[in-house]
Amino acid sequence: MMWPDTRLLDLFGIELPIVQAPMANACGVDMAVAVAEAGGLGSFPCAALSDEKIGAGVAEIRSRTGKPINLNFFCHEPAPADAEREAAWLKRLAPYYAELGAEMPKVPLKASIVPFTAATCAVVEELRPTVVSFHFGLPDAALVARVKKAGCKVISSATTLREARWLAERGVDAIIAQGAEAGGHRGMFLETEIATQIGTLALVQQIVGAVSVPVIAAGGIGDGRSIAAAFVLGAAGVQIGTAYLCCPEATISPLHWAALAEPGRETVITNVLSGRPARGILTRLVREQGPINTAIPAYPLATPALAPLRAKAEAKGSGDFSLLWSGQGGVPVSGLGAKELTRKLAEEALSRLKSLA
Amino acid sequence: MMWPDTRLLDLFGIELPIVQAPMANACGVDMAVAVAEAGGLGSFPCAALSDEKIGAGVAEIRSRTGKPINLNFFCHEPAPADAEREAAWLKRLAPYYAELGAEMPKVPLKASIVPFTAATCAVVEELRPTVVSFHFGLPDAALVARVKKAGCKVISSATTLREARWLAERGVDAIIAQGAEAGGHRGMFLETEIATQIGTLALVQQIVGAVSVPVIAAGGIGDGRSIAAAFVLGAAGVQIGTAYLCCPEATISPLHWAALAEPGRETVITNVLSGRPARGILTRLVREQGPINTAIPAYPLATPALAPLRAKAEAKGSGDFSLLWSGQGGVPVSGLGAKELTRKLAEEALSRLKSLA
Repeated sequence: MMWPDTRLLDLFGIELPIVQAPMANACGVDMAVAVAEAGGLGSFPCAALSDEKIGAGVAEIRSRTGKPINLNFFCHEPAPADAEREAAWLKRLAPYYAELGAEMPKVPLKASIVPFTAATCAVVEELRPTVVSFHFGLPDAALVARVKKAGCKVISSATTLREARWLAERGVDAIIAQGAEAGGHRGMFLETEIATQIGTLALVQQIVGAVSVPVIAAGGIGDGRSIAAAFVLGAAGVQIGTAYLCCPEATISPLHWAALAEPGRETVITNVLSGRPARGILTRLVREQGPINTAIPAYPLATPALAPLRAKAEAKGSGDFSLLWSGQGGVPVSGLGAKELTRKLAEEALSRLKSLA
Repeated sequence: MMWPDTRLLDLFGIELPIVQAPMANACGVDMAVAVAEAGGLGSFPCAALSDEKIGAGVAEIRSRTGKPINLNFFCHEPAPADAEREAAWLKRLAPYYAELGAEMPKVPLKASIVPFTAATCAVVEELRPTVVSFHFGLPDAALVARVKKAGCKVISSATTLREARWLAERGVDAIIAQGAEAGGHRGMFLETEIATQIGTLALVQQIVGAVSVPVIAAGGIGDGRSIAAAFVLGAAGVQIGTAYLCCPEATISPLHWAALAEPGRETVITNVLSGRPARGILTRLVREQGPINTAIPAYPLATPALAPLRAKAEAKGSGDFSLLWSGQGGVPVSGLGAKELTRKLAEEALSRLKSLA
C-alpha cells in the first residue's frame, strides 16, 4: 500500500508524510531525532534558541541521524517598546502576584522568543537543513531567497485561503493548512480576527483547491484515521503536535502532561499567555483575563509578564498561569516513544485507507 | 462500490448517507422532496411552523415522494419574560432604526420559533415521519418516548463529547457531531462557552470513539472529498447545509445567495442575530455589536428585535442586519438542483474513496 499522494515524500526526501510540529520550549533534539529516524520529518524548534544553541542542537541531531530535518523559526515583528502598556498589564496581574507572593517583573519586559534575523539566516546557510519552516508568515524576501539558495525547502502556515495564496505567491515549497483545532500559536499573519478562523476540514479543502504546492494538514490530527482523512481531503501530508507532546521525548512539565491526559480537557484560543492567539488548555488566567484581551502587551511580552507567577504557581503544583498548549485532537495513551508513535500512526493511516477499498 | 459504513442507510431506510440539514426559514417542501427523491434524507424544518403548517407541508411532501423524511424541531427553553433586557437591547439598536427610518418593535418581543410541545408531539404521532431530529438537546423524556413509540428514529446534535454521551444515554438512534465549521445555530445545550467549541475533524473522532450509535458528521462538509473524509474518520453519514442553500429549492433571499457566492466570505459564530450562538456571514451588525454580546435578549427574541430594521435594509439592498447563515465549507457553483446535487456529492464521495484503494 502506497500513500495516495507522494509529493511531500519526494519534496523532502522522507519516507512517511508526517511532519512533527516544531513546538518551541516543548521539544528539542530527542524528538527531532526520533521522528526523523522513524521516517517522518523531525523538526527542531529554534525560535527560543540563540544562534549558538541552534548550531549545537543541529550538531547533536546530525551525530544521531542522517535523515532530513526541519528547522523552525518565528518571523513576527519585534515587540515595540511600550512601557505604559506593559506597566498597565502588570498592574492587572498584580493581585495574582500578591496572592502567590511572587516578585513582579520589571518594565521593560524582555522577550525570550526572537524573530528570524540575517544573523540567524547565516547560521541556516551553514547548517543547510532539508527544510526551514516559518511561523507568522515569512521573513523579508531577501532572507527567504537566501534560505532557498542554500538548498532548503521553505514552508509556512496559512490559517485562511488568503494567507495560503500570499505564501504561494512568495514561492514556498509547501503550505501548512493550520486549522482552528491546532494547538499552540496560530500562524495567522494577515488575519487578525480569531472569530473567523477556520476548522481544519474546511480549510484544507479550500487551500488544496487554490494552490499548486503540496498542502500539509494541521489541527486536530492525532490518530491514523485523521491522517487518512487529511489525504482524502487532498493533503499531501500532516503536521502533528499535541500527540507528540505525550511522548517521553517531549520536554513539557508534569503539570502539562497531566492536563493533556485529562479526558475532558477543554482548550481555547487565547492571547493572554503570550500576546498572540494560541490554543491551549483553559486555565484560571485564561478564564479570568481572556480568552482574548486587547490590553495585552505585544507578543511575546505577555510571557515574561507571567514568568515569576507561573514559576511560583507551578512550584505549588498549580497550572493556573502556565502555558499548557494543546490542540483539540485526541492524545495517544500508549506511552510510545516518538519513533514508535510515528510508525504506528503511519501504519494505522495506511490501514484505514486500505480498509476503504 | 459500497459505502464503507451502511448503518445509517439501514437505520433510516435511505440509499445515500446524506442528511439535508433542516434549515428553518431557508428551505421547505421542495428541498425535502428533492433530497428524498435523490435517495438522501430530506428534512422539513418545523421549528418556525404552526402545527397546521407542519401537517400541510408533510401532506404535500407525501404527495410528491414516498421516501423517508425527517421532521426537525427545536427544543430550547421558551424565552423568559424580561421587558427590561428587551428594552435595553432595543435602545442599543435605536441608532440603527433612526439611521434607516424603521419603526422600532414593541416590548414584549414576540418569538416566531417555538419549542417542541405536547401538541406538536401529537402531530408527529399522527404523521409518523421516519426520522425526527431535535436541535438544542432533546425535549422532555416523556415526549421523546412518545416520538419513539410512534416508530420514528430520534436524532440530535452534539457539539462536544459530553453532549454526545448525554444524548446516547437518552437513547437517540444516531448523533449528529456538529463541528465548529457548521452554519446556523450551534446545537449546544450543555455547553455555553463558544471558545471551547470543537472543529469537525476533531469532534467526529472523539464522538465516534465514545458512542455506539451511528455518527453523522456536520460542519464544513460540502463536497465529495469532505464526505469521504467523514467516513474515513468513522462517521456513518454526513449532514450538509450550506451547500444546499445554493440550490434553487432554497428559499433564501437574493442577498443571502450573493453573500454565499462571495469567494472570500467570512463567517463567525454570533449570538446577536437570534440570542443563541449561530454561524453566519460577518455583517455590519455582527461586527459592531458582536460577535458575542451578553446583553442580548433570550433566544429567539433577538430576531424580532431586528425584524423591521432588517426588512428596511434589505429593501435597500443591504444585508447589514440580515441572518445570513453559512458554514465554513465550500459552496457548489454548479447551480444544480438539490436532487442532482445530492447524487453528484454521493458519486464524488464514492469515487474519492475508490481512488484511494
